[in-house]
Amino acid sequence: MPEGSFPAELSSVAIVGAGQVGTMVGMALREAGAPDVSLFDRDPGVAQESIGRGAGDRSLADAGQALRADTLVLALPVPAIVSFLDDLGPSFRAGSFVIDTGSAKGRVVEAIRRSVPQGVHAIGGHPIAGTERPGPAGARPRLLQEAPFILTPARPDEVALARGEALARALGSRPLVLEAEAHDRLIARTSHLSHVLAFALAFVAGDAVREGERLRAIEGPGFTGATRLSSSDPGMVAGFLTANAEEVHRAIEDLHRALYAVSAAIDGGEHQLAKALAAARDALERSR
Amino acid sequence: MPEGSFPAELSSVAIVGAGQVGTMVGMALREAGAPDVSLFDRDPGVAQESIGRGAGDRSLADAGQALRADTLVLALPVPAIVSFLDDLGPSFRAGSFVIDTGSAKGRVVEAIRRSVPQGVHAIGGHPIAGTERPGPAGARPRLLQEAPFILTPARPDEVALARGEALARALGSRPLVLEAEAHDRLIARTSHLSHVLAFALAFVAGDAVREGERLRAIEGPGFTGATRLSSSDPGMVAGFLTANAEEVHRAIEDLHRALYAVSAAIDGGEHQLAKALAAARDALERSR
Repeated sequence: MPEGSFPAELSSVAIVGAGQVGTMVGMALREAGAPDVSLFDRDPGVAQESIGRGAGDRSLADAGQALRADTLVLALPVPAIVSFLDDLGPSFRAGSFVIDTGSAKGRVVEAIRRSVPQGVHAIGGHPIAGTERPGPAGARPRLLQEAPFILTPARPDEVALARGEALARALGSRPLVLEAEAHDRLIARTSHLSHVLAFALAFVAGDAVREGERLRAIEGPGFTGATRLSSSDPGMVAGFLTANAEEVHRAIEDLHRALYAVSAAIDGGEHQLAKALAAARDALERSR
Repeated sequence: MPEGSFPAELSSVAIVGAGQVGTMVGMALREAGAPDVSLFDRDPGVAQESIGRGAGDRSLADAGQALRADTLVLALPVPAIVSFLDDLGPSFRAGSFVIDTGSAKGRVVEAIRRSVPQGVHAIGGHPIAGTERPGPAGARPRLLQEAPFILTPARPDEVALARGEALARALGSRPLVLEAEAHDRLIARTSHLSHVLAFALAFVAGDAVREGERLRAIEGPGFTGATRLSSSDPGMVAGFLTANAEEVHRAIEDLHRALYAVSAAIDGGEHQLAKALAAARDALERSR
């Protein structure tokens, strides 16, 4: 979106959480011409670093001040988003717009329904963009360009939906409306399972190394890529895996079954295995 | 390696298999100044395409002609390498140098011991470089630069080792000598398991999609990266997984256990999970 085309209805923006995602969103909004972006982080040093990178005009001394903004963006780990909604939701201003950026949405929309008054325009949000590098230094606003920005409605609210779409477009992203259930089911098996596997693979490979051996000497780009997500912040990953625990457990069970099928196909020989691998690839290609 | 510095002892080179790896090796050798590179592929069209990309000076009408070269490079799927060694090994010329490029080495060194006469300088080889794109079109010789090139001796043979190292350096790679057992154990848990996981994840994600849903709309770079290897040629992957079946089975069992540990840690809550994830990441970092 060109400078100056920031949607007027979003007006003043407060971002709570100045980590990688909050910083990325703030930088993109200011590039889009947002007139007033304030930031809160419980670590004032992180807020300052984020502002230093251009993510906001000023930092807020406490989280409560963020409630004065017309648009409130909660860019926290998922469990902290839920706590924030439950603790401060009842104090949100009528007519204001509230959205989050967490990667598990069932818990978030439940908290909105439970704790945010009807006159507040609240909706779940999830920008599918980011890096494995935590903190403001990991923010790459260009990753939001053309990225999916999923909106998960908590209740019928055309204003919340319209502002969510306007925010997504202001960031350069493609808004997509999904039920929280569908979001959590699919994200458990794409993003969340990808994270689980990167850490599990890191452990298995690291554990196989004996005295005097170094993985660096033998690893290629395939393995480096497959373990890349294991350098994500463990606390952030633990946050979204526990918040989406039910679907993540199901996804891991699905994966156990898929691995048993691969093992059986290996025993069935090269031809059977090649067929099974091609079928797995095709299942993904068909669903894309 | 600059042009013209091709090691004289390698002399004439014949490459059997003009797919991605054979083409990549041929292109790199000719760039290094190899004076005579011939190619055989059972599909003459593939051999011609490979030569068109600069991987060789001429193609051979049958595999037996490759045995006239001083250096023979077997760039075939692993089971085909083993068959080639068993079928034609007894006819290899005394004093010639033979190496392969397969990613499972136990079976290859056994076939060398079993079928290649002592006077032939044969050694197992594995360049850790390549793309998921099959055929000559997937060849990227620059990926060999600084890549590990693992050499797995089949028996005491200083000439085979020296020529293997000279070949690896001519390709721009870093030669590394490993026992076939160590190679197969580590590669099963790095490269091979990464491939298994990419296909298993592709299946699980594809299978979770319901009528009217598209993964493309919600997938981010993490998932795209985690499933990238599932566009590898299923036949090639089936070849190295079955050739290294014993270690791949063990690696998959290790992974089942690692996933059970992650599941238990999710149930233990955010803090326990974050600790478990950090420990997995650290196991990899320590072993690199």
